[in-house]
Amino acid sequence: MTEALKVAVAGLGTVGGGTVRLLQEQAELIERRCGRAVRLVAASALERPPELCLAGVQWFDDAVDMAREADADLVVELIGGAHGVALKVCETAFRHGRHVVTANKAMLAHHGTDLAHLAESRGLTLGFEAAVAGGIPVIKALREGLAGNRVIEVHGILNGTCNYILTRMRNEGLDFATILADAQRLGYAESDPSFDIDGIDSAHKIAILASVAFGCPIRFTPANVEGIRNVSAIDIKYAELLGYRIKLLGIARRDGGILQQRVHPCLVPAAAPIATVDGVFNAVTIVGDFVGRVVLVGRGAGAEPTASAVVADVIDIATGRRSPTFGVPVGQLDSIEPAPLAARHGAYYLRLMVRDEVGVLAEVAGILSRAGVSIAKVFQDERAPGEKVPVVLTTHDTDEASMRRALDTIAGLAPVMEPPQLIRIEQF
Amino acid sequence: MTEALKVAVAGLGTVGGGTVRLLQEQAELIERRCGRAVRLVAASALERPPELCLAGVQWFDDAVDMAREADADLVVELIGGAHGVALKVCETAFRHGRHVVTANKAMLAHHGTDLAHLAESRGLTLGFEAAVAGGIPVIKALREGLAGNRVIEVHGILNGTCNYILTRMRNEGLDFATILADAQRLGYAESDPSFDIDGIDSAHKIAILASVAFGCPIRFTPANVEGIRNVSAIDIKYAELLGYRIKLLGIARRDGGILQQRVHPCLVPAAAPIATVDGVFNAVTIVGDFVGRVVLVGRGAGAEPTASAVVADVIDIATGRRSPTFGVPVGQLDSIEPAPLAARHGAYYLRLMVRDEVGVLAEVAGILSRAGVSIAKVFQDERAPGEKVPVVLTTHDTDEASMRRALDTIAGLAPVMEPPQLIRIEQF
Repeated sequence: MTEALKVAVAGLGTVGGGTVRLLQEQAELIERRCGRAVRLVAASALERPPELCLAGVQWFDDAVDMAREADADLVVELIGGAHGVALKVCETAFRHGRHVVTANKAMLAHHGTDLAHLAESRGLTLGFEAAVAGGIPVIKALREGLAGNRVIEVHGILNGTCNYILTRMRNEGLDFATILADAQRLGYAESDPSFDIDGIDSAHKIAILASVAFGCPIRFTPANVEGIRNVSAIDIKYAELLGYRIKLLGIARRDGGILQQRVHPCLVPAAAPIATVDGVFNAVTIVGDFVGRVVLVGRGAGAEPTASAVVADVIDIATGRRSPTFGVPVGQLDSIEPAPLAARHGAYYLRLMVRDEVGVLAEVAGILSRAGVSIAKVFQDERAPGEKVPVVLTTHDTDEASMRRALDTIAGLAPVMEPPQLIRIEQF
Repeated sequence: MTEALKVAVAGLGTVGGGTVRLLQEQAELIERRCGRAVRLVAASALERPPELCLAGVQWFDDAVDMAREADADLVVELIGGAHGVALKVCETAFRHGRHVVTANKAMLAHHGTDLAHLAESRGLTLGFEAAVAGGIPVIKALREGLAGNRVIEVHGILNGTCNYILTRMRNEGLDFATILADAQRLGYAESDPSFDIDGIDSAHKIAILASVAFGCPIRFTPANVEGIRNVSAIDIKYAELLGYRIKLLGIARRDGGILQQRVHPCLVPAAAPIATVDGVFNAVTIVGDFVGRVVLVGRGAGAEPTASAVVADVIDIATGRRSPTFGVPVGQLDSIEPAPLAARHGAYYLRLMVRDEVGVLAEVAGILSRAGVSIAKVFQDERAPGEKVPVVLTTHDTDEASMRRALDTIAGLAPVMEPPQLIRIEQF
């Protein structure tokens, strides 16, 4: 029997604790699956969590010291943060000939390509299944399970907090701020929720997915990101009437030589598989040229599901199963630059709050028409002369640039009393 | 650069043709992903399909000869059939030191464990991703992506023909025979459809899934299989009223030391992710102790999706990624025997066609009560005194054995004019 694989874990918060428990509770199962034991030999964190059994595990107060000095084959980085200690831990581990497994999407979004270079040049593995969509084995599916396909598109619900908020807004008819406050009270949203609700977390994840799907360097594109703060209960209601649901999606699509990579709220057809994925669940859709559409659904966060993904990577390393970090060797990545959001071509949902008076709709329609935007449907069913009422319309496919030009003019009309609400429609 | 992986393909029907096309069209992509070329060097079939380009490919009239003599590292078996030529091709390939990739679920259900012995004893791979759920990478997910989990349950829609028929029955309100005939006309069902509609194909697949999920030898259990012939439009209507959909599912579940492994129509809650998987799509749900529920949806058949799965296995072999055939080495499989269907414990849907007369329902309720079966809901909304009307009821969880005893008595009642319809309810 081969020698045990020796694992050091840096960071013992939620996911770190789950990983330690998984490695301990399933030790026998893991040994049968690997043909060798996987042993936790070292750990490091700001504090020793009293609930974990760390007898016989070497303790390091400093995770970078651990990455340098521990007698380990592999360092699991679960500290988090894009640029700080976490990055130093990973770089140090590679420089000392140790594999790295991480759940750190922020770090990968910013430094993933460099880390992959470091790993591959030394014949080491950088495992990051846990960085995207928690327990869903989507990196493995893209990189190995669908390796015979040219990927056309990958999109998904990548942030459980946003999906939880949107689901409750829909179920309860309440507004964003109310549900967010309650989600914070219940622990489903952070006290500073901007990372999640402004779409940054989803943007990190779609950057990673795009890289694996299309074999290109990881490019975090904050300019192509919109969160869910501006989605209102009224939009959810009208989306429903139109046969759609509103979801925050990360989308990466290759149209010829153009890579689209963006995060924003979307109207998706109620019949799309992803439309019924509710609450804290994540879902990822992969479209390949041979396989067609594959959808993977599961828990996107939490101690146990994320630990499941971390340990899957550990087991791959223990058994010697290897893939190039992003599906092809990092030296052969295709350097395609994501296009700006304004280059999108598609359909739109537009909601205006207007003073109910004769001729407003005609004026709006005229502006859209002159911008070359063709209207698909219009709703204006609440009449209250002189008061503020919603006018909702959807468009046929059009250029986002045209749409935005028209919106600038519409926003300046006297009867338009709030900034227009524009949500992209994705016809999956 | 490593030498090319040399591939021989046996069987050039739908999937074989798709595989050849995939290997040829994506040759460059595959080479980048593998770090070596994958080259089709030999092929065998009853006839040379004129639409395939086989220039430079050695032709064998006899697939067993090819498995013995071709200058190939790997034989892809796409002939089909449980016991005949296909089996001989695989055995011969292994005996001559060649890996095997197959989409042949019938052969695996009957001979999978023996083939795994043959492969593993020689250090060779038996790849069978394509044998279950077409293009969905479910074997890889179970064996690698979720390898840190003790699997509790795996269930799924494993036969596209049945799902297509049930979906159309629901959408169109038509009966089984009508839709089957139309499906045959359109090519969605075979002229002899029994393999699909009697659940045999699903049973082969759930046997394979159970083996990988629980690390036990493959056991095909025809006694635990019911197909969809007896599902009627009226059942679909009542299921709908009760908040369910009817799906043909393969189910494998480990309850303590007992392995349940069965195929039958089920009422599943309309809100279950699997309930909305319609048409020819397949879906597999995996429940792991750490990851929770993961659902994978995609095309379960067809040339391209199945070729995608075949080639994923080929790429794994080309890159040297290996797993034990059923997740743990074949010598260490747990020999758990599937329990008989009568050992099931759960809820039931029961439909009786009775002459509408006073006291029938009371009599049925009395029989169920004496058998220890507790009724959850009753529907008897169509009144037509003296004529045949449906009585539909659901039960709370009960033993199948008790239910069947009660049914024997109920079937013998004078006003019960047709054999009772019993469908299991699965509360996912």
